Amino acid sequence: MNTSISEIKTVTAAFVIIGNEILSGRTKDVNLSYLATALVQVGIRLDEVRVIRDDQSTIANTVKTLRSEYDYVFTSGGIGPTHDDITCDSIALSFELDVHHHPEALKRMKAHAKKRGVELNEARLRMARTPLGANLINNPISAAPGFTIENVHVMAGVPSVFQAMVNELLPTLRTGTKIHSRTVISNLGEGTVANGLEKIQSKYPTIDIGSYPFFKNGIYGTSLVLRGAQVNDLDVAAKDIFNLIKEYGGHPTDGDEN
Amino acid sequence: MNTSISEIKTVTAAFVIIGNEILSGRTKDVNLSYLATALVQVGIRLDEVRVIRDDQSTIANTVKTLRSEYDYVFTSGGIGPTHDDITCDSIALSFELDVHHHPEALKRMKAHAKKRGVELNEARLRMARTPLGANLINNPISAAPGFTIENVHVMAGVPSVFQAMVNELLPTLRTGTKIHSRTVISNLGEGTVANGLEKIQSKYPTIDIGSYPFFKNGIYGTSLVLRGAQVNDLDVAAKDIFNLIKEYGGHPTDGDEN
Repeated sequence: MNTSISEIKTVTAAFVIIGNEILSGRTKDVNLSYLATALVQVGIRLDEVRVIRDDQSTIANTVKTLRSEYDYVFTSGGIGPTHDDITCDSIALSFELDVHHHPEALKRMKAHAKKRGVELNEARLRMARTPLGANLINNPISAAPGFTIENVHVMAGVPSVFQAMVNELLPTLRTGTKIHSRTVISNLGEGTVANGLEKIQSKYPTIDIGSYPFFKNGIYGTSLVLRGAQVNDLDVAAKDIFNLIKEYGGHPTDGDEN
Repeated sequence: MNTSISEIKTVTAAFVIIGNEILSGRTKDVNLSYLATALVQVGIRLDEVRVIRDDQSTIANTVKTLRSEYDYVFTSGGIGPTHDDITCDSIALSFELDVHHHPEALKRMKAHAKKRGVELNEARLRMARTPLGANLINNPISAAPGFTIENVHVMAGVPSVFQAMVNELLPTLRTGTKIHSRTVISNLGEGTVANGLEKIQSKYPTIDIGSYPFFKNGIYGTSLVLRGAQVNDLDVAAKDIFNLIKEYGGHPTDGDEN
């Protein structure tokens, strides 16, 4: 909401998860949570996530839309060796670029295949393909690289490989102001303190206060999450929230911080 | 990909997850996986998911776009009693409708508050608000209902409540042809069988074959997932895939089925 103050430098991102297996419920995505946490830590604001089908024009159009709206677009999935791995061709289509076997990618994959003693067949060689002009994202796990075209970063869907690629990529990106957070746990339902909370939100316009109800062990409780660029501001507002909860007979406790 | 045959009746859906807490990595979403699985079971195809910020115009515009593209739009999050719960107003904005306190929602919430012995204060009463003309989605957990406007179904973000609302809602919706799936697990890396697999995919155009690599206990394996409207077709194609894996010296096994 009303977090923005002029000193905050915002760098934005969108994440595109390419995969019918997520949409069918077969696979639970774990990459979103990993990327989201990593981006917060470096000061990039994840503004939107889309999960889309393995369809060439859907991928191409989605990436085209998002790359003009956000500073960065990250994608996961569809860069393997099989017939349903169409991300490289779709990204090339999105940028109207040709696809080639990237020389450095070929080199890395040859070395990896030799080490593992597997044949570098036509299918595996597909994983060395990138749109013309792409830069590689290193894959320390299984060699076949991701790639970057302009502000679009194309990574694997397999979580261990995705995470390794994110770790390789993030230190190379431009980042914004780091947003800190502080969580206050209340053992009251969120309806009890809602009015008081709104007043505290109005009092601290540079902080964004989110209220997340939970129902655990028979208790309706609430996690109140404060976010802002200044840790001191968060401490002051958190004190007001502690007092508000006590005022209503509740017991506030500190939650996770980062 | 090329699953469509003329007898298949497709009903499509999009899911909008409203929540800064997902985008910040604080909360791991579990609603997508629940909804995706439930939709497959009734024969509704989930085509797209978007995770968006708690921002009124973002919510309004996203819902406006998606409701014209898909048969159904489901949303989760932002219908609680606090200042950051802006979904109702955003949906009303999206449809250019006024917001009112829905009489039946008020009745249910009064009964629930009385039972729990909590005060139905102004904040809690916010949860009885809907756009004018909305139908309620029953909430058997905590009374405060979700609502439906045209083809848009607005539900809670708290997983237990979301799941209960999905269970109330789905039996009332129009559904399409149920798509079945069958999984074959291979202990070979997906690059090994990729070429053969592409040939099998070409042989069975009414089936959609997905290849999902995994790395577990030091083994590069692959889950091969077949999807289609006819279980018999899946069995025939799965047999071809079993034979392909054996041909390359691998050991195929049956995975989860549904």
